[in-house]
Amino acid sequence: MKAVLVAQSGGPSMVINQSLAGVVLAARADKRVGPILGALHGIDGILGERFIDLRKVTPATLENVAATPSSALGSVRRKPTADDCARIFEVLRRRGVKWFFYIGGNDSAETASIISEHARAAGEDIVCFHVPKTIDNDLRESDHTPGYGSAARFVACAFMGDDLDNRALGGVKIDVVMGRHAGFLTAASALARVAPGDGPHLIYLPERPFSPTRFVKDVKDVVKREGRCVIAVSEGIADAKGNLIASRFIHEVDSHGNAQLSGSGALGDALANLVKEKTGIRRVRADTFGYLQRSFPGVASATDQDEARAAGAAAFAAAVSGKHAGGSIAIRRKGTRRYAVSYDVVPLAAVAKETRSMPDEFIADNGHDVTQAFIDYARPLVGQLPVKALLPGII
Amino acid sequence: MKAVLVAQSGGPSMVINQSLAGVVLAARADKRVGPILGALHGIDGILGERFIDLRKVTPATLENVAATPSSALGSVRRKPTADDCARIFEVLRRRGVKWFFYIGGNDSAETASIISEHARAAGEDIVCFHVPKTIDNDLRESDHTPGYGSAARFVACAFMGDDLDNRALGGVKIDVVMGRHAGFLTAASALARVAPGDGPHLIYLPERPFSPTRFVKDVKDVVKREGRCVIAVSEGIADAKGNLIASRFIHEVDSHGNAQLSGSGALGDALANLVKEKTGIRRVRADTFGYLQRSFPGVASATDQDEARAAGAAAFAAAVSGKHAGGSIAIRRKGTRRYAVSYDVVPLAAVAKETRSMPDEFIADNGHDVTQAFIDYARPLVGQLPVKALLPGII
Repeated sequence: MKAVLVAQSGGPSMVINQSLAGVVLAARADKRVGPILGALHGIDGILGERFIDLRKVTPATLENVAATPSSALGSVRRKPTADDCARIFEVLRRRGVKWFFYIGGNDSAETASIISEHARAAGEDIVCFHVPKTIDNDLRESDHTPGYGSAARFVACAFMGDDLDNRALGGVKIDVVMGRHAGFLTAASALARVAPGDGPHLIYLPERPFSPTRFVKDVKDVVKREGRCVIAVSEGIADAKGNLIASRFIHEVDSHGNAQLSGSGALGDALANLVKEKTGIRRVRADTFGYLQRSFPGVASATDQDEARAAGAAAFAAAVSGKHAGGSIAIRRKGTRRYAVSYDVVPLAAVAKETRSMPDEFIADNGHDVTQAFIDYARPLVGQLPVKALLPGII
Repeated sequence: MKAVLVAQSGGPSMVINQSLAGVVLAARADKRVGPILGALHGIDGILGERFIDLRKVTPATLENVAATPSSALGSVRRKPTADDCARIFEVLRRRGVKWFFYIGGNDSAETASIISEHARAAGEDIVCFHVPKTIDNDLRESDHTPGYGSAARFVACAFMGDDLDNRALGGVKIDVVMGRHAGFLTAASALARVAPGDGPHLIYLPERPFSPTRFVKDVKDVVKREGRCVIAVSEGIADAKGNLIASRFIHEVDSHGNAQLSGSGALGDALANLVKEKTGIRRVRADTFGYLQRSFPGVASATDQDEARAAGAAAFAAAVSGKHAGGSIAIRRKGTRRYAVSYDVVPLAAVAKETRSMPDEFIADNGHDVTQAFIDYARPLVGQLPVKALLPGII
């Protein structure tokens, strides 16, 4: 009986442990499976042979872990070298691992792809599956990704509350949202709108070039019209040449070559200072939502939770089917009348490394808003939001 | 039949509309009351005669508004002058207002106190009541204040998620929490701890002098012990001379003379840079929770919601009783075995302007943590937190 090995990688999400539970519960129910190992901190845990016996975890604990945000096995941001792969195969062989699951985003898919290709070249008997996860929603092949719906729900709730706050005290409020290359998460701020005049009034996405001059003009226009302005800005906004605006203030890159954008309020503060200087408006504030977007407990989308678990189970089923040397799971939307999805097997190379952006039909022509098509797309992923009611006659 | 006038002032909270509903529902049920007016944006709305007829709001809408965060009548930060008071009395007389309710923190209590004193001096027939509200929990006379439990619940949830995030990816994480002079909200981060090793590992409050040198040493010690470090820092931390650390990076004051601390990530970023420079640790991040702490929908504490409403109702009952020329409501804890409170009338002057800090018995001797006494104090105010479970054997 061969072993299952599962690990998590990249930025955590609120539902990444649902995918872990999906793999583990499916593996436990399959008589072909022997040991079920969890590697701590992704491939670091394989290389260092730091494993947890996931057969020993009680069903109750597993359910509680599934409901807990952030990667329960720990995470890592590391791209394996050829030497790493050789060492990984040595460990997997010794542990009798045949089925390897790596839960993460496009960098994690790249890791799985590298391991899978090296395994094939080396003639290793390993089936390597990537289980999708990213709050950025930027994996290719998928309609959307596990983790997005919950992070989007956090962002929508945050803007709902913050727009009410801004209604009460006025001025200009800038909120910086995660999303390195794709604006999906920033776009979810639009779901907060319920009543006429509700913010966010401006939404800046990485998919459209950001001009500070245009930005200041947009803010002035909204303040003139609404008497206040709430703004959603992606941390990944870039100028017409593709240079990150944030990189003017922040300097740090990870081992995949990604600029470190989160965990700093510099972009928001710089934009707030710009608005103060150029408009003379006194009350200008900026918040950067930061890591709460991917880890806040208790706000996960029920649909996202279900799909994250189903994606894990689908990866297991595909891996043990004997039909695939490796692959990833893509969530596709079925039909148009009622929300429904399928979990399809796609090649690792198709989701590795490269990402996707917001399609043009989701972005308003003015370049600082989303379309109804986006709202219709995102609403079922995020689920019902909390009550938001204004007193009659309040502007 | 005399009129009731109600308004909201200062920073919004998640339950400030529960207090509004408490006043309005009690007033509606009382046959001595004629019109029930809501002034928009606090005393600005009285001076500008911008009123809403709160009798016309349906019970269903009022309940939805009560459940909605942030001041539904709008807010203001303004201290009335003698001229303002004269103009206010002119408006109140013309509108037949006898009972005036001002929902807010200590600055709002000061406003209510100024109006009350001027009314008495001018022989106006006005009963002026302050309804307590502040996420800072720093009103004198009260065991705790409406708004605190919900903001504390947000902070506890945020640290629960962020500590899990830090467990997954390691390094040092600094989270800056609201609280100008009092550390109650920052202290609530400690409620996030469930398992041994859980963060926050360090908690810095305004009640103890902050030394950057000592801070760096504390962080190094925790990283040595835990391999990582999660830190709660109050925006109001100050050096031994009482100078705000944040004021080295932020320069802005409001009309009550308070330094503007929120709506900027500067303090967190500065502390993160300090840790990076002095320790050589590469992964150091800072988030500033900002306005989400007081406005995020869907995370309010049920106890806080109930008490905020009861405080509004208690203010109304006291105002119409004929026993008081004015006053404020203080929440006091009754008994010790089981959590229960009373709503007592206290003089406006007792809660106006001055604030209270964390008592010494809530602060650990090492100066960077809270005591079990604080946990016991805060737990019933915050209520049950979401599930947090770790896999067995995870460090």
